[in-house]
Amino acid sequence: MPFVTYATLPAKTILPGITGHYAHMEKITLGDVEVAAGTVLPMHQHPHDQFSYLLSGRVEFTVGDETRLLEPGQCAVIPGGTPHGCRALTACRILDVFSPARDDYR
Amino acid sequence: MPFVTYATLPAKTILPGITGHYAHMEKITLGDVEVAAGTVLPMHQHPHDQFSYLLSGRVEFTVGDETRLLEPGQCAVIPGGTPHGCRALTACRILDVFSPARDDYR
Repeated sequence: MPFVTYATLPAKTILPGITGHYAHMEKITLGDVEVAAGTVLPMHQHPHDQFSYLLSGRVEFTVGDETRLLEPGQCAVIPGGTPHGCRALTACRILDVFSPARDDYR
Repeated sequence: MPFVTYATLPAKTILPGITGHYAHMEKITLGDVEVAAGTVLPMHQHPHDQFSYLLSGRVEFTVGDETRLLEPGQCAVIPGGTPHGCRALTACRILDVFSPARDDYR
């Protein structure tokens, strides 16, 4: 499967208001994620390193004890085990990258 | 460094016509890469798993012995050690994800 069309991948609802399409390799999961305006992703943590790259919209993101309003072209950097969460101020599109792969999302 | 503004990262020219901004974690490198129309990235390989997610433009991508014309929302999936290359039919913006991190890009 050397090529993927994200829109044709099964949609996975992470929680109400957060729906993504995810592709997986051995070491990486890459998700194209839509977040509805007003959605709150509560603080949580997992062992995977994560980048959350904002493609469109505005989101208030917390990593550890730092909170930042992100605009497109900005990215949250979340080392494995670090508590993080976010609140979408508008509808957002985010690319989420994880390593190791999110086997729980397969 | 829990937040990154890609445009403020140092620009790295991979070869003429391909310039990216790269952020690194322990296990992942994420690059926001601009490719000029007509640029050819010759076939090459590396041990890192790679996703190349097309954000804008049109690119002809080869992975192993398969070639595909990619449009935005499509992605090349390149397991470590797999020969790959591409040709930009228009100016393109691509998000490149690598694991392990590209220490040679730091």
